[in-house]
Amino acid sequence: MLTLYDYLDNGNGYKVRLLLAHLGRDYTLVEKDIMAGETRTPDYLAMNPNGKIPLLKLEDGSFLAESNAMLNYLAEGTPYLPDGGIDRARVLQWMFFEQYSHEPPIAGARFRMRHLEQTPQVKVEIEARRAPGEATLGVMEGELATRDWFAAGRYTIADIALYPYTHVADQGGFDLAAYPAIGRWIERIEAQPSWFPMLPAE
Amino acid sequence: MLTLYDYLDNGNGYKVRLLLAHLGRDYTLVEKDIMAGETRTPDYLAMNPNGKIPLLKLEDGSFLAESNAMLNYLAEGTPYLPDGGIDRARVLQWMFFEQYSHEPPIAGARFRMRHLEQTPQVKVEIEARRAPGEATLGVMEGELATRDWFAAGRYTIADIALYPYTHVADQGGFDLAAYPAIGRWIERIEAQPSWFPMLPAE
Repeated sequence: MLTLYDYLDNGNGYKVRLLLAHLGRDYTLVEKDIMAGETRTPDYLAMNPNGKIPLLKLEDGSFLAESNAMLNYLAEGTPYLPDGGIDRARVLQWMFFEQYSHEPPIAGARFRMRHLEQTPQVKVEIEARRAPGEATLGVMEGELATRDWFAAGRYTIADIALYPYTHVADQGGFDLAAYPAIGRWIERIEAQPSWFPMLPAE
Repeated sequence: MLTLYDYLDNGNGYKVRLLLAHLGRDYTLVEKDIMAGETRTPDYLAMNPNGKIPLLKLEDGSFLAESNAMLNYLAEGTPYLPDGGIDRARVLQWMFFEQYSHEPPIAGARFRMRHLEQTPQVKVEIEARRAPGEATLGVMEGELATRDWFAAGRYTIADIALYPYTHVADQGGFDLAAYPAIGRWIERIEAQPSWFPMLPAE
């Protein structure tokens, strides 16, 4: 069986848990508290030298890091990932956009507001993420103004990658009311069969 | 024919130009000066709303953004990208690592040292990239200590994605002499047929 090492208040692991639910796949969840240094221990670094969660242990005992690589691996041969060609490339385009242009400002602001002491330095770091985060949400709003999904004309792992940190962007100080097309896209995702909320308590 | 919009002193475009050379594919190069705002004009934003280079115009006139999505699209069906399974997932693992853990600190330090006035604020920004950049190079050194290539046992688009900003990391203040396995990997890449240097003058 698959084992997922994860920290639950984290959008990257939620992506993978959401796809696993859509696929009806069982897995063992092992929680690691990143705030307590549990991903920086020698044992953990032996599994993932980059010291990050999520981390997926495969049936053969080997490890796969990077949430978006996991999504591609798990979605292969399913409707969530086109077989090839330009549709597949556009799914990847939005997944790389997510890791480079979306996660650093939007999840970065949320993490600092939610998990760190609000020192003057942390407030400066949050403020520095405001303009790039709004620009990223603006790009997404523009895309979703003319279509329902980011790639391939259907719900794919591109949407699953972008959804987690977008739907909690308000926790990083971004006002999603300014992005109505994003709001409707979030509603479409949350209406998918087997969708479940990011945190058990929410 | 393919058209690549690029700024030559940029590792993300170099990845794509290097793969196109390996594949023997012709393309038209259109240079865009990011320092002169040429990727922020209305005409450019109509092609790529995210306002970044490189940008690939396909034969059908549509556009593909994100250098690593281009590498996957162009390498499909060639030895540079495994057909599927865990080998393909590991290629993607290193490509997402490149965009999230490598490019921001390592290319970010280089860009600020090479293209921006060295104000106190810029120097703080460069210094903030030192520890994460060294950590990333440390992860790469550890991987390359036991094998020649990052994934699939051969030269793939994972190596092509990681090479550009690694081999000029010294321009961002990182001393590659401390990473001998990375140095040997760079030599292996530069010995590949059809390899060419990043900048025409270098």
